[in-house]
Amino acid sequence: MPDFSQLHCPAPISQHSQVLMAHGGGGRLMQQLIDRVFVAAFANPALEERHDGAVLDPGGRRIAFTTDSYVVRPLFFPGGDMGSLAVNGTVNDLAMCGARPRWLSAGFILEEGLPLDTLGRVVASMQRAAAAAGVALVTGDTKVVDRGKGDGLYVNTAGIGVLEPATLIGPRQVRAGDVLLLSGDLGRHGMAIMSVREGLTFESPIESDCAPLAAPVLGLIEEGVEVHCLRDLTRGGLAAGLNEIAAAANLEIEVDEAAIPVSEPVRGACEILGFDPLYVANEGRFIALVPESDAERALAVLRRHPVSLNSLRIGRVRAGTAGLVLLRSRIGAQRILDLLSGEQLPRIC
Amino acid sequence: MPDFSQLHCPAPISQHSQVLMAHGGGGRLMQQLIDRVFVAAFANPALEERHDGAVLDPGGRRIAFTTDSYVVRPLFFPGGDMGSLAVNGTVNDLAMCGARPRWLSAGFILEEGLPLDTLGRVVASMQRAAAAAGVALVTGDTKVVDRGKGDGLYVNTAGIGVLEPATLIGPRQVRAGDVLLLSGDLGRHGMAIMSVREGLTFESPIESDCAPLAAPVLGLIEEGVEVHCLRDLTRGGLAAGLNEIAAAANLEIEVDEAAIPVSEPVRGACEILGFDPLYVANEGRFIALVPESDAERALAVLRRHPVSLNSLRIGRVRAGTAGLVLLRSRIGAQRILDLLSGEQLPRIC
Repeated sequence: MPDFSQLHCPAPISQHSQVLMAHGGGGRLMQQLIDRVFVAAFANPALEERHDGAVLDPGGRRIAFTTDSYVVRPLFFPGGDMGSLAVNGTVNDLAMCGARPRWLSAGFILEEGLPLDTLGRVVASMQRAAAAAGVALVTGDTKVVDRGKGDGLYVNTAGIGVLEPATLIGPRQVRAGDVLLLSGDLGRHGMAIMSVREGLTFESPIESDCAPLAAPVLGLIEEGVEVHCLRDLTRGGLAAGLNEIAAAANLEIEVDEAAIPVSEPVRGACEILGFDPLYVANEGRFIALVPESDAERALAVLRRHPVSLNSLRIGRVRAGTAGLVLLRSRIGAQRILDLLSGEQLPRIC
Repeated sequence: MPDFSQLHCPAPISQHSQVLMAHGGGGRLMQQLIDRVFVAAFANPALEERHDGAVLDPGGRRIAFTTDSYVVRPLFFPGGDMGSLAVNGTVNDLAMCGARPRWLSAGFILEEGLPLDTLGRVVASMQRAAAAAGVALVTGDTKVVDRGKGDGLYVNTAGIGVLEPATLIGPRQVRAGDVLLLSGDLGRHGMAIMSVREGLTFESPIESDCAPLAAPVLGLIEEGVEVHCLRDLTRGGLAAGLNEIAAAANLEIEVDEAAIPVSEPVRGACEILGFDPLYVANEGRFIALVPESDAERALAVLRRHPVSLNSLRIGRVRAGTAGLVLLRSRIGAQRILDLLSGEQLPRIC
């Protein structure tokens, strides 16, 4: 497959303002698109090799590997856009493995007629987000589909991160007695998207929390905190993350509802629209499960990083019923925090 | 982002026959889809960890990393389908780096209303192709877009391969004097797709050449052949591959037109439809550039593998004009083999 890295364009810049089918055809117009839009933004030695793939050196370490496609609507929203989301979402999945994010691929599916200016804005945002997260976009691909067969622009990114030798983080490492830490308030990303879609206006608009999360995670690892599990709280929100971990770990998780921070604008928007912030997607929030003995030290490390400044304890793990997530309310009553059937809000990522 | 590997489904199998928006929502229906369709097909230890990404060990080696999205229409065609293409296309990009393909990610963009049976057939084909190519699908993602905003199914795969220590393969390694080897006849994939789309029928239908190419490439490396560059001949065909290499290497490539094998059915279909087989996409053909001193040995190795049984010399590299590709005709005349502006045939991969 032709990709960004193998193409070279000696011809002048295209005069077209929209994506044409020919931009995906493997010929001169595709080369122009790639050189003008992608290589210009992401220039790095691996891309410059112009080969079918990038050759990379993990330095003898194990690697983490993940992928996500991005179909969010609208493309641009308060606090972010598809470009920053496509970088941070994948970077964060690597961070949740305890890996230092290093390299990204990008696959673009463009609909015929997409303004090249729109594509350029998304790519520029990807470039900024990649620089901020310390990752290099090293290989890519473009396809063009017929008008009416897409929705302007879909992006897939895959990512590779490098692990420290001793790192062993995942749902199966969770133990009864672990403390549940949350890195900040919930619901900003989903409600930022929803507010735009529904035309809601607030005195101060709700901004997405979209941000890279590797710095606080690597801080925990470097400080020697015994991290058992990490999870970013994207589709399905805190409720989905906790249910997945409780199920995979065969343990019960109890959460203190009163401890969970939700900002006033997010709470207000959720009330107006009938959403529960515990199920709303975030793009810059995560949970960490650590032993009680390390919990205070972990919080101190997390609070050094702006993205997790307001980290706090919200619950604990116990033997209990395997796979169960219980919410303890302000008045002490308990209810099951279950998965929804679908989701409250589609196409938020 | 939730992905295949982090989800667990204790609930009964879904009764739905089509993809719903809720299948992408991070809730119970998404878990059912993932367990029923994806984890069932691709079960392996990395997926079983049910984490945000897969942790992998390249054993101290350098890695190759590549990605492609697949938008081919029709989804099923003689000799292959989107599933086999999505595995082999990415596996082959890794092979063209001289890497042993090891791990794949898969990102699915599903249109609301896609029959689950169709998805299941594509996934089953991916599973068979992955097994045949010796790669494991270790992490993935699903998104659902609204009816009318997709075209049933798009798939992205990214891949990681592992390199032998001394391997250094790429357009910049090409030298004047190198011999150009081709692994077989041209044009099968593109004309198989086009014949279906145009409703052409032949006595024996043209089948795509879609196949994994790592075995002959690793054979060359294991035998100590000094491989300078490899390229699979996908979008834009032989013409695009040669132009990209000539440009990146700053050298001239001369090709003997009479030496290039094209089967009679492909030649006939090209004549009927006005296509030039040198520009038609292949999915199981590649070129290798090796020094003259290694050329015969390389051909002997390639001819041991069924997929490259009919390998032959078709040209050579010389100082000449940087970036130029020349075609020498049967009667000795020369013409420039240039890039097309777009392509003859969209959405072939």
